[in-house]
Amino acid sequence: MIGQVVDTNSAWMAQELNKIGIWLKRKVAVGDDRAEIVRALDSESAISDIILITGGLGPTADDITKPVLCEYFNGELVVNDQALANIVHIFEKILKKPVTEVNRKQAEVPDNCTVLQNPWGTAPAMWFEKNGKVFISMPGVPVEMKGIMQHHVLNALKGRFNLPVILHQTVLVAGIGESALAEVIQQWEAALPPYIKLAYLPHFGTVRLRMTATGTDREALEIELEQQLRRLKPLIQQWMVIDDDLTMQQAVARLLKSRKQTTGTAESCTGGYIAHLLTMDAGASSNFKGGVVSYDNSIKTGLLGVSEQTLESVGAVSEETVVQMVKGALAALGTDYAVATSGIMGPDGGSENKPVGTVWIGVGNKDKIVTQRFHFRFDRLRNIELTAQNALNMLRKFITDLPEEKH
Amino acid sequence: MIGQVVDTNSAWMAQELNKIGIWLKRKVAVGDDRAEIVRALDSESAISDIILITGGLGPTADDITKPVLCEYFNGELVVNDQALANIVHIFEKILKKPVTEVNRKQAEVPDNCTVLQNPWGTAPAMWFEKNGKVFISMPGVPVEMKGIMQHHVLNALKGRFNLPVILHQTVLVAGIGESALAEVIQQWEAALPPYIKLAYLPHFGTVRLRMTATGTDREALEIELEQQLRRLKPLIQQWMVIDDDLTMQQAVARLLKSRKQTTGTAESCTGGYIAHLLTMDAGASSNFKGGVVSYDNSIKTGLLGVSEQTLESVGAVSEETVVQMVKGALAALGTDYAVATSGIMGPDGGSENKPVGTVWIGVGNKDKIVTQRFHFRFDRLRNIELTAQNALNMLRKFITDLPEEKH
Repeated sequence: MIGQVVDTNSAWMAQELNKIGIWLKRKVAVGDDRAEIVRALDSESAISDIILITGGLGPTADDITKPVLCEYFNGELVVNDQALANIVHIFEKILKKPVTEVNRKQAEVPDNCTVLQNPWGTAPAMWFEKNGKVFISMPGVPVEMKGIMQHHVLNALKGRFNLPVILHQTVLVAGIGESALAEVIQQWEAALPPYIKLAYLPHFGTVRLRMTATGTDREALEIELEQQLRRLKPLIQQWMVIDDDLTMQQAVARLLKSRKQTTGTAESCTGGYIAHLLTMDAGASSNFKGGVVSYDNSIKTGLLGVSEQTLESVGAVSEETVVQMVKGALAALGTDYAVATSGIMGPDGGSENKPVGTVWIGVGNKDKIVTQRFHFRFDRLRNIELTAQNALNMLRKFITDLPEEKH
Repeated sequence: MIGQVVDTNSAWMAQELNKIGIWLKRKVAVGDDRAEIVRALDSESAISDIILITGGLGPTADDITKPVLCEYFNGELVVNDQALANIVHIFEKILKKPVTEVNRKQAEVPDNCTVLQNPWGTAPAMWFEKNGKVFISMPGVPVEMKGIMQHHVLNALKGRFNLPVILHQTVLVAGIGESALAEVIQQWEAALPPYIKLAYLPHFGTVRLRMTATGTDREALEIELEQQLRRLKPLIQQWMVIDDDLTMQQAVARLLKSRKQTTGTAESCTGGYIAHLLTMDAGASSNFKGGVVSYDNSIKTGLLGVSEQTLESVGAVSEETVVQMVKGALAALGTDYAVATSGIMGPDGGSENKPVGTVWIGVGNKDKIVTQRFHFRFDRLRNIELTAQNALNMLRKFITDLPEEKH
């Protein structure tokens, strides 16, 4: 409640619940305060069937969610042997230190809840029922919450409630804004049957279009989604990255894998962020060999062979520089493709000819290099993200436009 | 409410409000639904003095917050001339297209609110009062909300309410978990006066400890915070990164700047993420020159001079390899320091001797190189983040332990 943490849990939870046919009605955040927690439990259970609670289960004195829940449901704290064994295991085998008294107490749970074990951390999750309403208390640490949701909660909710069949079909598009896209597909969208909802999910220069079909007949829904996708595709042909629920970097990785080819990076203004995106997912080593972060001009000349004369005459943020960076990266890294970025991310460093947000991107292979100039108008981090997404999309288009090689 | 957007607004707002002595009591998110909006206005104004509302002010049909507020406060929509002039200016001068009818309607506001102009966008903000409670409705676009908060709302709230003095003192520690830290400082924490609250803010191997003092006498609070900090420091000496509200990479950057020195990176398993962290903040070019992402072994040998024999005999995830990577990076990048990482981030690629999560980190300068082996036990992204934070902390300690050079 003092703003130190941005809540990413609730958005993830809403998405996962959505997939199994549960809709989020309200989202409430309160501090570690007994009266506020009780007020929230009362008010939310009055209007929803399921109340998911995260956080406040840590070992320190300010974490009061467990005792408050114990009191709220008239339970008594008892040691859960399996939770205790897990805590002992984490301390003795993983952290290699003795279990502290406060951590040992994390194995205590109200005697009227179903315990959901948490091998990802020391606080077990708890499932309560009262007046037909389900209350589930989970730790707030994202990896623990996600593990518990995926291994216990989602399946248990499917068993506990009579949920509809929910199917999704996602399409990733890039290079067109949300409102322009809405105009392009207006008629198609208006003709969607009422049981298919469309969501626009914009993210740094890309938009994920997600159709969600709700019903009881899985096969009929599958056929309907497929038909709608077939009608949608010709409308968005030129912007479509992939008709699957993948990120831009995952789409690029899939493309490279299918051609058994590799890419490398030569990054100035993105400072390693594109390489990070390309190594976020497991299996990256099959299509990404490495990169050079040439933040300083001495690295551009030293490792990538950009000429001093180019840097002096037209500057680092120029078409000529990114062309030379692509060539240098191909030579230094020995990859089939390379992508290069050079720009002014802000907030300082702009000039009249090259204002903050000016970026040159180059992509190419041994035969051909293409370049594009951009002008982003956001803050530093958003400019970095937009540059990375556009660079990966240029790489994707470059590869897609090439004839497929025989292997 | 379908989880497509992570709410970063409310954390920022809580921080800014905190600074002027206003505490966030509850945070509620509801969909674009009249009944849900009214329920939230009723319930929140029953327990808080100020209700800040964001979002739902766009030009499209699903944005219903303005008509709902107009009805809730018994107003009538009237055109606000200044808001209209702003909308016309944005369309004609900036977007260079004619104003549409739906956007023109954004200049209409309830006749019983105070209009807060929004030069950052087309939807003006609105300040209502009812039964002594203040309701402020702002657009949800972060840059617009922030502009309106900083230029109108925060000052107006200071004038409207008699607010206390609020002071913060943050200390960043690394290498000790939240609960172990709590034990170390238990007595100090218990002796804090009631007007100083302590928050533990853990983040990937680091914990930010934040003291918040509330009162009326600024000078007395400053002295008290300083005294508490002086008592705290000896207890956490060995883990303290910095006694300021900075991230690990900001602490490293400040240290390098103070010594007019530079660092470079040689990253295998972190795939460019450390370079990204070191270039996230403006001014990075003064202390970060660049890096090599040597994901594939061919890049380790080619650009960093790691010997083939080392890779064959002890493998890429080894002390010898990261030592050679540090040496290679120092030579290739011409920096004062270099930091190198090599490890198995998972979920695949582990072996009995080197299970998933095994990481070697090396840092050094021309005179000395130190290494450390880690074993992280989380998912891929968290292992990457933990490796990066530990690498930066090793670099910080390496630099701090050196005698300060004369300039």
